[in-house]
Amino acid sequence: MRHFISLNDWTKREIMELLQLAEHYREQAFILSEQLFAANLFFEPSTRTKMSFIVAQRKLGLDVLDFNEEFSSTKKGESLYDTAKTFEAIGANMLVIRHRDDCWIEKLEGNLSIPIINAGAGKKEHPTQCLLDLLTIYQEFQKFKGINVVIAGDISHSRVAKSNAYTLQKMGAHVYLTAAEGCKDRSLPFPYISMDEAVEIADTLMLLRIQHERHEVAYDQTTSYLDKYGLTKQREKCMQPQAIILHPAPINRNVEIDTDLVECNRSRIFKQMNNGVYARMAIMSSVLKEWGSIHETVDQKYQPPFTYGGVS
Amino acid sequence: MRHFISLNDWTKREIMELLQLAEHYREQAFILSEQLFAANLFFEPSTRTKMSFIVAQRKLGLDVLDFNEEFSSTKKGESLYDTAKTFEAIGANMLVIRHRDDCWIEKLEGNLSIPIINAGAGKKEHPTQCLLDLLTIYQEFQKFKGINVVIAGDISHSRVAKSNAYTLQKMGAHVYLTAAEGCKDRSLPFPYISMDEAVEIADTLMLLRIQHERHEVAYDQTTSYLDKYGLTKQREKCMQPQAIILHPAPINRNVEIDTDLVECNRSRIFKQMNNGVYARMAIMSSVLKEWGSIHETVDQKYQPPFTYGGVS
Amino acid sequence: MRHFISLNDWTKREIMELLQLAEHYREQAFILSEQLFAANLFFEPSTRTKMSFIVAQRKLGLDVLDFNEEFSSTKKGESLYDTAKTFEAIGANMLVIRHRDDCWIEKLEGNLSIPIINAGAGKKEHPTQCLLDLLTIYQEFQKFKGINVVIAGDISHSRVAKSNAYTLQKMGAHVYLTAAEGCKDRSLPFPYISMDEAVEIADTLMLLRIQHERHEVAYDQTTSYLDKYGLTKQREKCMQPQAIILHPAPINRNVEIDTDLVECNRSRIFKQMNNGVYARMAIMSSVLKEWGSIHETVDQKYQPPFTYGGVS
Repeated sequence: MRHFISLNDWTKREIMELLQLAEHYREQAFILSEQLFAANLFFEPSTRTKMSFIVAQRKLGLDVLDFNEEFSSTKKGESLYDTAKTFEAIGANMLVIRHRDDCWIEKLEGNLSIPIINAGAGKKEHPTQCLLDLLTIYQEFQKFKGINVVIAGDISHSRVAKSNAYTLQKMGAHVYLTAAEGCKDRSLPFPYISMDEAVEIADTLMLLRIQHERHEVAYDQTTSYLDKYGLTKQREKCMQPQAIILHPAPINRNVEIDTDLVECNRSRIFKQMNNGVYARMAIMSSVLKEWGSIHETVDQKYQPPFTYGGVS
Repeated sequence: MRHFISLNDWTKREIMELLQLAEHYREQAFILSEQLFAANLFFEPSTRTKMSFIVAQRKLGLDVLDFNEEFSSTKKGESLYDTAKTFEAIGANMLVIRHRDDCWIEKLEGNLSIPIINAGAGKKEHPTQCLLDLLTIYQEFQKFKGINVVIAGDISHSRVAKSNAYTLQKMGAHVYLTAAEGCKDRSLPFPYISMDEAVEIADTLMLLRIQHERHEVAYDQTTSYLDKYGLTKQREKCMQPQAIILHPAPINRNVEIDTDLVECNRSRIFKQMNNGVYARMAIMSSVLKEWGSIHETVDQKYQPPFTYGGVS
Repeated sequence: MRHFISLNDWTKREIMELLQLAEHYREQAFILSEQLFAANLFFEPSTRTKMSFIVAQRKLGLDVLDFNEEFSSTKKGESLYDTAKTFEAIGANMLVIRHRDDCWIEKLEGNLSIPIINAGAGKKEHPTQCLLDLLTIYQEFQKFKGINVVIAGDISHSRVAKSNAYTLQKMGAHVYLTAAEGCKDRSLPFPYISMDEAVEIADTLMLLRIQHERHEVAYDQTTSYLDKYGLTKQREKCMQPQAIILHPAPINRNVEIDTDLVECNRSRIFKQMNNGVYARMAIMSSVLKEWGSIHETVDQKYQPPFTYGGVS
């Protein structure tokens, strides 16, 4: 039985099945017949991811336990391990965890009888964001093989970048990176190109947020960051006709992207958020089924909405 | 299709229908048969209003998304607009928003496919508080026409004062104001009288909270604010036999009102809170119906509990 | 009709009935057929107790109102009394309150038409923790009479110690205390023994958390607190074969207890948390029944899982 920590643990076929299940949930609600509790343990601020999980949980019929670090015993020095064990003891059937530590999972694995969903691990992994990005790309191109994806921006601080780069490569996409010098991570085995090259070749341009709170130098609107490294209106005009823009949000308007482009025709930014709910429903119900908490046959009822085009 | 931003957008007849629907909900629960999500986006502290909305939402059978600014991406600089669009994208069917900005609605109107309920806009409008005040007054007098309402206290900082003054005048009431010099708003087209005059003529004395957090000078219990401008026991004795006391709360006991009067026979302060739940049920279900999210016929089932006495 | 403030108000027979009902809920869910609201008003940080109450409430089918002091009108100076009256007015059917004041209950009693559950009163009482501790002890020994219970640690700051000592004595247990000099409360009518004596005689060793936030001197891992007063591995070896270890958590690992003992065979620490949910279900449903809010017959359906062995 697997926790949902990284898409490295999922095969191409399993990833495609998650995408199909996500599309299925868009069409048809699935409400559990028994009472199960999902506990959301977020140790970093979040609007989108946390609320997306909550909507997904409620759409599955899960009861939600909402942990706020500020009002909790972590104020009294309690560790993540003890907090997680506490939620297990009081009846949580699943933990959804975001924590600033890259490797928090290592302290929990093997010590819990309930599954964990990784909702963000430090600078390392953000696999549910990755799955919703995959869903958004697949909706557009009905395949991953041969698609050019350029990940642009604050690579070094981005867990989104890392989760996406490896998984997209596994799915058959060509992955490129583009970043300002201080934002590069040289340990990643993907080629760096310039932003001007990026807009020319990308089928999918995946912008990242400058994580001001993790940087020592400020990248604000008064600098020429947008002009040098961001998606200006000028650069957008050089993009391929079919190319789309992604961004995990929150967006620094006029830093990573010109504010006028946030809702342009190429933008799938709010579509990504919408997809996030269904991607997370698929992840959570699949994991709960693998752990034996859901007995209903989730997928019996539906016809796959798309085929395995992206998988060789 | 209207957002619920100001009762200026509602006709007298429509306001009376909201009041009737509120009374109906007191008698008979209405639970939705489909899953809809209400997102509460409060950017200012609130107990009463927020909890009242949540109870109202749950009584309607709505699923509740509770946004806490402190734990959110507004910490990362996200705007109200992007936050609202995010909640729309992840599946909210309605937004309930309180924000310190007087005019936040302008940035959202026309850009969302879901209705917005104004739960407090800066110093300008607080229309759901207004409707619950109307409900409380109507329960007492079965009309608005000719009723003397005096709004007393921190007029200049009060969105409650403004929403109530204009709407009560529209409904046919006579509206007066009374305030300490620093608390007056001279732009309002209503006569100022003294507190001593107020207690003599009022059918409804609507006290307001001194908003310490918005004042530069302190109005505390050591000053003679209560004696000069508040409702003392002495003044209460001069009130008309039928006259009632309202206060939107939280109350500064012994500032706006002698603490012993908070639960006196004339006080409808906790009744107002109780009415708030039903008023908000009426508002939310009406708006959701106007926007096509509720298909059930809400009002088919009931006999109006009171007639249109207050409407000419 | 009683609030649930202290187990001093409950007879031995009633306490046994609560324990039996708790065991019943472990086996069989009880979901209310009507909509009732439980409001959780926590004025001190809490993970375990608050989440345990929420799980218990949801398992009973109660709707939950979650009050966060930080976002509330207590920021505007609102008192506990006015906050409680507000929740009553907007439709709460029960209040669960934790507050730093020892005697907050006195201001509320007699002024509310709904029951109050004490979820922690200053340094004085924590009766729901007490009931879950009783449940854990009873599961082990099927009686209280003659059982040696040693309460160890920060007695002077512990509401858990006081609630437990008196109630366990009433149930027939022999109660001893052990504490460092600065942690003793000499007003309690129970004998103090040394930690070395404690491990030899205890059937139940009830460790308490050092409440750093209430102490002026620090008791940290660099001092020899563990060696002098805590449960070391050495001392654990001197315990009786049948003896168990309790701790209300959060635990200061390597202060009150060696970290390796937290999940040892004798430890019932996570079992306590699990028991807490069922104990609180029993308490809340019993109180709601006494107040006439629940009409269903809760206990008709089940066979008592254990007998009155501990009650003479």
